Amino acid sequence: MSQGLTLTELQANLGGVIRGDGTVSLTGVASLENAGPGQLGFVMDPKLTEVARNSAATALITSPVIADALSGKACLVVDKPHVAFAQAVALLHPEPRIVPGIHPTAVVHPSAHIAPDVHIGPHASIGAGVRVGAGSRIGANCVLCDGVAIGCDCRLYPQVTVYAGCTLGDRVILHSGCVVGSDGFGYALDEGRWLKVPQVGVVRIGNDVEVGSHTAIDRGALDDTVIEDGVKLDNLIQIAHNVRIGANTAIAACVGIAGSTRIGRDCRLGGAAMISGHLEITDGVTVSGGSLVAGDIREPGTYTSVLPLMPHGEWRRNAALIRHLDEMHKRLKTLEKRLSESERTDP
Amino acid sequence: MSQGLTLTELQANLGGVIRGDGTVSLTGVASLENAGPGQLGFVMDPKLTEVARNSAATALITSPVIADALSGKACLVVDKPHVAFAQAVALLHPEPRIVPGIHPTAVVHPSAHIAPDVHIGPHASIGAGVRVGAGSRIGANCVLCDGVAIGCDCRLYPQVTVYAGCTLGDRVILHSGCVVGSDGFGYALDEGRWLKVPQVGVVRIGNDVEVGSHTAIDRGALDDTVIEDGVKLDNLIQIAHNVRIGANTAIAACVGIAGSTRIGRDCRLGGAAMISGHLEITDGVTVSGGSLVAGDIREPGTYTSVLPLMPHGEWRRNAALIRHLDEMHKRLKTLEKRLSESERTDP
Amino acid sequence: MSQGLTLTELQANLGGVIRGDGTVSLTGVASLENAGPGQLGFVMDPKLTEVARNSAATALITSPVIADALSGKACLVVDKPHVAFAQAVALLHPEPRIVPGIHPTAVVHPSAHIAPDVHIGPHASIGAGVRVGAGSRIGANCVLCDGVAIGCDCRLYPQVTVYAGCTLGDRVILHSGCVVGSDGFGYALDEGRWLKVPQVGVVRIGNDVEVGSHTAIDRGALDDTVIEDGVKLDNLIQIAHNVRIGANTAIAACVGIAGSTRIGRDCRLGGAAMISGHLEITDGVTVSGGSLVAGDIREPGTYTSVLPLMPHGEWRRNAALIRHLDEMHKRLKTLEKRLSESERTDP
Repeated sequence: MSQGLTLTELQANLGGVIRGDGTVSLTGVASLENAGPGQLGFVMDPKLTEVARNSAATALITSPVIADALSGKACLVVDKPHVAFAQAVALLHPEPRIVPGIHPTAVVHPSAHIAPDVHIGPHASIGAGVRVGAGSRIGANCVLCDGVAIGCDCRLYPQVTVYAGCTLGDRVILHSGCVVGSDGFGYALDEGRWLKVPQVGVVRIGNDVEVGSHTAIDRGALDDTVIEDGVKLDNLIQIAHNVRIGANTAIAACVGIAGSTRIGRDCRLGGAAMISGHLEITDGVTVSGGSLVAGDIREPGTYTSVLPLMPHGEWRRNAALIRHLDEMHKRLKTLEKRLSESERTDP
Repeated sequence: MSQGLTLTELQANLGGVIRGDGTVSLTGVASLENAGPGQLGFVMDPKLTEVARNSAATALITSPVIADALSGKACLVVDKPHVAFAQAVALLHPEPRIVPGIHPTAVVHPSAHIAPDVHIGPHASIGAGVRVGAGSRIGANCVLCDGVAIGCDCRLYPQVTVYAGCTLGDRVILHSGCVVGSDGFGYALDEGRWLKVPQVGVVRIGNDVEVGSHTAIDRGALDDTVIEDGVKLDNLIQIAHNVRIGANTAIAACVGIAGSTRIGRDCRLGGAAMISGHLEITDGVTVSGGSLVAGDIREPGTYTSVLPLMPHGEWRRNAALIRHLDEMHKRLKTLEKRLSESERTDP
Repeated sequence: MSQGLTLTELQANLGGVIRGDGTVSLTGVASLENAGPGQLGFVMDPKLTEVARNSAATALITSPVIADALSGKACLVVDKPHVAFAQAVALLHPEPRIVPGIHPTAVVHPSAHIAPDVHIGPHASIGAGVRVGAGSRIGANCVLCDGVAIGCDCRLYPQVTVYAGCTLGDRVILHSGCVVGSDGFGYALDEGRWLKVPQVGVVRIGNDVEVGSHTAIDRGALDDTVIEDGVKLDNLIQIAHNVRIGANTAIAACVGIAGSTRIGRDCRLGGAAMISGHLEITDGVTVSGGSLVAGDIREPGTYTSVLPLMPHGEWRRNAALIRHLDEMHKRLKTLEKRLSESERTDP
């Protein structure tokens, strides 16, 4: 929690126009429903205008249209309320300042290059030849294997593992339990038994990437697995070997992407979408949550493959018929033929 | 493994009526198929009566009806065999006693409040201002970030992470790899790039909650993510920011729940069910495994959205037609019209 | 990266016939597209013959048919190029030699039996009575609870947890974040509240098993959960209590298998397949990615249950009709009847 800023001080950082009292002091942000005195709220959806009017928030960030309907409230009126609010949250809830230093319980190989202002937490393990750039924080119990390179101003939360040789750009955030560089699922079948194919590629992560808890990104088999700049990955995602994900693509939780698939830039994959291997998904594609993609997608747009939810009894009747669609279709064709014949024979 | 109890001693704890020899000594539990001398079995399903008769278990917990068919076997007859058996397992296989104390390799911030009889394992990290209540066990390599509060008699298995400020009630069990309080997936799109929205809420977990391995529960964006009393979460579940899960709801593995959705009390979500964001699921709802919920559910009951499994060739024929259902429906309507006209023109 | 081998030296290990210059020196492997001088490529698919011809790889492993079309290239011609290439990768990219010894920060219970040439990394915790066989490597921050038994030549990457009493055979690989032996999801419902059923079985893993990152294998409730020899499990898989997986079965990422299900030998489960509980899947079954299996499968073959992907607008029209299949079917039957009557009444 910060010492607080006045609305006018916020405006100095965020731009926009103040309506009402700019001297009000703000110490934090809150939802419209739960805001109290000293808190800043946010409203962008005109349907929430009434909720905003009744909110106890001391000030609001909003759009011109909504502000017109909220006269009396202290407002910061901006073109992009969502963006300004994100910046306001960062100003009012600044991250604790990084305390540089290597915790005495951390194990750091003498050949590692650790920038002087890096923080390394308790029980971390830093392997041979690892590089960690200025301003980065390595949480408790993180393990960076030999030859890993971490850029500047990165944040690895506790219990992250980065396998040997993998690289991260600058300002990368890895949440707890995230694993970067585990072996891809590669075997050769030899007389009924699986022979492991050693995975000799690495994972290369660009700048400004965030990766959620328990997301696994496998190293490449021969070439590398690549996560381009600005990609955002939620929790519990599987990225198989040799996948490439284009810049600024956002992927929701529980998604799986099989080996060697390439996802374009600016794509959005909904939660639990599953993408088969060796596919090309072009730029600007949205896949609805829960959908399975089994072929290339060459045109931008939204794609879906989920069965609609039904009460179970209704589902039983309808789903059973899916198994008989082919038969229904044949009966339909027969009917069309019979009717055509009957019409023809009719006078 | 315990020293053993006689069936009569079990009865003293569990209630019920003994049939046959109450003096038999029991040292553990086992399945009907694999039980041997000294072991206690369990049968509730009348279809398994024959299996129970042939079991080498020394005694059985069962219902009155089945016991009637098992004369000669030592039985403890109770109204709720499943509940009594759960209690019997706990009696015959007691947890190792907690050894209080903080392992010398654990790192505990001087401002943390650790109750005297707490166990903290090797290489754990306990941040500033953390509170751990009496009788709780913190496993090896667990990380409790600043300001975390853990109630009494909790059990955190090794490698659990709890992010700053999150709270657990009493008797909470967190399995290995579980992450509580990682950032929600919140960004504002600003000219094609994602701007992180700092997540300033926390996670609040009630009493008697159990959370499986690798389950991730994200902290709230503004308000908190809330898991009410008695909720049971299996492995590899994703709970997004600002979700609320009502008391005693049980969620099977691989489920994902997107942001701000509220699940009622006493619900059951089958494995790999996926729930979209900003939904309301009322109390007492069951969602079948693998189903996708994309709208509110206002009535209790069971809901399903899965395609039935088919041999692949059959699936190919039928699934292709799903893409032509709209056309089939139009052809059906045309046929109905043509036939009606033909019938009308018929004498 | 190795010192390098000539193609003739590779042949001495792998067999096969050399075409072209056997004296060329190879220092590593690469994909056809990215190979450079000194690198070995691999081609098995005749469609890639042209790509292989244009590759800068110094030598190729391939089949007789493709080699005929690549005259001039140095080739090692073998019957099973995929198997030979897997072996070549292992020869050209040997694993770093194991450095025996227990890191001074590791905590090893005095009653543990650790073979003399085992490597145990920083901050590992080894409980009472644990056994680790010759040649095994236990990564940083791994936790082996009391009574765990690890065979010979196993490799546990960092941050693996094995719960009390679970056993691994020889040559088992567990990737980071993998959890073996957490409690199964077992409760008895008692007047609306869930009573935990203590899980007293263990997990038994055979020889030559590999388990991916974040895969969770629950201990058995009464009997054990069993993973037979040669099973390969990818990342983020859920194996519930008392599941049994037959030898050499391969399971792709994000799969869930519910309690007490038995999967046969030599099966293949595609990514995100979901298998309900208490089922029997026979040997040699393939389940397509994303499919849900809710009943026994008694015949080998490929099974599928996924909705085909559609552009969202098309999906809306078609998916809505799935909810009306039952009604469409009735209308179809009515039409058939009406047409039959109309035909009958026709002269």
